[in-house]
Amino acid sequence: MSETIKYLLDESHLPKFWYNIAADLPSPPPAVLHPGTRQPVGPDDLAPLFPMALIMQEVSTEREIEIPEPVRQIYRQWRPSPLYRARRLEKILQTPARIYYKNEGVSPAGSHKPNTAVAQAFYNKEAGIKRISTETGAGQWGSSLSFAGALFGIEVQVFMVRVSYDQKPYRRALMETYGARCVASPSMETNYGRSVLAADPGSLGSLGIAISEAVEVAATHDDVKYALGSVLNHVLLHQSVIGLEAIEQMGMANDYPDVVIGCAGGGSNFAGIAFPFIGLQLRGGRKVQVIAVEPAACPSLTRGKYAYDFGDTGCMTPLTKMHTLGSNFMPSGLHAGGLRYHGMSPLVSHCKELGLLEARAYHQTPCFEAAVQFARAEGIVPAPESSHAVRAAIDEALKCRESGTSKAILFNLSGHGHFDMQAYIDYFEGKLKDQPYDQNALDKSLSALPVV
Amino acid sequence: MSETIKYLLDESHLPKFWYNIAADLPSPPPAVLHPGTRQPVGPDDLAPLFPMALIMQEVSTEREIEIPEPVRQIYRQWRPSPLYRARRLEKILQTPARIYYKNEGVSPAGSHKPNTAVAQAFYNKEAGIKRISTETGAGQWGSSLSFAGALFGIEVQVFMVRVSYDQKPYRRALMETYGARCVASPSMETNYGRSVLAADPGSLGSLGIAISEAVEVAATHDDVKYALGSVLNHVLLHQSVIGLEAIEQMGMANDYPDVVIGCAGGGSNFAGIAFPFIGLQLRGGRKVQVIAVEPAACPSLTRGKYAYDFGDTGCMTPLTKMHTLGSNFMPSGLHAGGLRYHGMSPLVSHCKELGLLEARAYHQTPCFEAAVQFARAEGIVPAPESSHAVRAAIDEALKCRESGTSKAILFNLSGHGHFDMQAYIDYFEGKLKDQPYDQNALDKSLSALPVV
Repeated sequence: MSETIKYLLDESHLPKFWYNIAADLPSPPPAVLHPGTRQPVGPDDLAPLFPMALIMQEVSTEREIEIPEPVRQIYRQWRPSPLYRARRLEKILQTPARIYYKNEGVSPAGSHKPNTAVAQAFYNKEAGIKRISTETGAGQWGSSLSFAGALFGIEVQVFMVRVSYDQKPYRRALMETYGARCVASPSMETNYGRSVLAADPGSLGSLGIAISEAVEVAATHDDVKYALGSVLNHVLLHQSVIGLEAIEQMGMANDYPDVVIGCAGGGSNFAGIAFPFIGLQLRGGRKVQVIAVEPAACPSLTRGKYAYDFGDTGCMTPLTKMHTLGSNFMPSGLHAGGLRYHGMSPLVSHCKELGLLEARAYHQTPCFEAAVQFARAEGIVPAPESSHAVRAAIDEALKCRESGTSKAILFNLSGHGHFDMQAYIDYFEGKLKDQPYDQNALDKSLSALPVV
Repeated sequence: MSETIKYLLDESHLPKFWYNIAADLPSPPPAVLHPGTRQPVGPDDLAPLFPMALIMQEVSTEREIEIPEPVRQIYRQWRPSPLYRARRLEKILQTPARIYYKNEGVSPAGSHKPNTAVAQAFYNKEAGIKRISTETGAGQWGSSLSFAGALFGIEVQVFMVRVSYDQKPYRRALMETYGARCVASPSMETNYGRSVLAADPGSLGSLGIAISEAVEVAATHDDVKYALGSVLNHVLLHQSVIGLEAIEQMGMANDYPDVVIGCAGGGSNFAGIAFPFIGLQLRGGRKVQVIAVEPAACPSLTRGKYAYDFGDTGCMTPLTKMHTLGSNFMPSGLHAGGLRYHGMSPLVSHCKELGLLEARAYHQTPCFEAAVQFARAEGIVPAPESSHAVRAAIDEALKCRESGTSKAILFNLSGHGHFDMQAYIDYFEGKLKDQPYDQNALDKSLSALPVV
């Protein structure tokens, strides 16, 4: 019987530094613009939203940024996370490919999100902040920040997209178990939320609306800061521990990936696994094929426009140049709530423009099919988001079978699916809808992009 | 900030042998009796239900039984499981006690159950068995055996107690994701199930009924064997990896437990952590206080009778001497479905009679209170079953604060609560019922114990 092989780093190999790809890029990403003046923002412009330490990380071009020891101490609870060789899956696929996966589902909140949640909570605590506001869609990020807030004694307020709030009571319960306050968005707690509800009392909400609410709370309260779970440079920075560990673990396996794969919503777990490998390549190392996988229903990298756009619906955030579907784009029904974002991390977008990565979009049914195949082979049930990476990894492995080539394929299993079993039920019952995006709606949304 | 400390054994320290406490007990447990003849059973009597390798483990008095390498290979996916020092919890409790916990929630199915599920699937595969039938209440066991069956290519049929089948669709979905066939019990698939439904078409089922159905399927099909997730000697044997690892990990911490705690339903996770320590004590090592924690609503060890009883409602299983509430006892509403069993492992019962362990019962509300305190301190949400161990550990730590003594307290965190968030919602909403057992019902159930 072929067996899954675990590569587990000793704690002494827990990274001491995060890796910042900005140091190695041949050109810097375009400037971030102020939402009002449309001029480049400086650190002070961001000060109402974030503690200065995070702002300095956002704009840093240092290659290595030291991970504070209290953050490393918490990381040690589940890090270094295991990297596996999926020998059982390889056998079932009858592929000569070597399939590796990094399992970020082992964190207390069940995904990669605590890597940045803990760091952000730490810097907010250092800055004397008592409360953090944030938004969440499917709930992975909200529960991770709630977890981190509990550890540092920081109050966490989560604006949860109304439709998820109603449909995912268990994710909400997880946040509340960690002591956070979870509010359905749009809410009556913000001006923006009230304005949305005035126009549409039955609004189901969206991630863009929830971001606007969370940002408003931070912008209008001195003792409250805002936290974002993806997209921003400092978030991607914190996620680099995934790839840094994976580089060492691939070394333990005496191997090196030909292909690196991650699912991409805002881009943080994808960048987490991919950027350290891209960095090695940029510094003269081996070339890797890097694939960002997104849902066909929300295809920012494959069908969006590379343009300046807002991060939210209320047009409160700074403008960043990114692959975007337009901040008013509403993706159709999709179980991978973490991939429902209209935009993409500016750093990931920039890397795509530089030809350092490619993107691919899948409908959700083939992703769940891959996830079930993976679960039966490897024993781990992937989150719907992660199932996109699983699909791409299996497809690459099947290509190897066709061509008779043996590639090393590494993907990031960003989280487990224990809170997403309804999606599996819908898949088994044939109820998943594989709707493509609406081209008219996309054209309309893109035509409304801000002029800069 | 006080930090949780992880003690992670290198894979080379994964146990090579299971520990069998029968070798060290001053007297053997009472004989197992045939349900028909009421005479001691021999291995052949059990052959319709289990492969011979497991039957030989059931009756073995060898101290060490080798773990087959294919089982160890699968164990390595998540074992050795981490042992933590709960420094953050200690600080919140302001206790001089040193609190340690073994985290069995890191397995793919989320609990300790795969330790035996993998072993049982292996021996069935070796014996050429194509299908295993079993029962499940809350679903921890059913999903673990489904996981193991998927790895070994064995079909798994799970009789799931009707009320859980209806109320816990996500557990069922997990089993189906692993490829198992899950049937609500009582079902129309067995004579016993049909007889129960004939008498009560709306029966909500019980673990005792589901066991009868699963046993009947195995007893009446040559190519089907039965698997039980707790109670039996060989199941407790397989769980000994928990305590064996914990002994080494406590050594890494330069410490040794004064108190060892586990929750007890059928007794397997409790014995898993406790028996290796009791064994050391029996062989001249340090005395440990060992506490089995059970729900006040289903108090077999604290309120049951030590007597011969059936393991099921249909009176098909052999008779074992154990602490029992009577096989017809129906516990009141209780979220810890894994602790809803009328009996207790004969080996655990025997150890209690020998004075090697003590038992304690809690209502569920104080257990959830402890679980939430633990989750906010340590970041891990315990299963409702495990919350009983958390409660006892916190109470022991608080006693240390009162008395100013610093004890080392070790407990088994047998599983995570990701599939049990409804229980947390009920707790937060004040809906949990702390009903004591019904004394009249218990008296009646005990008066119907079989005469041997």
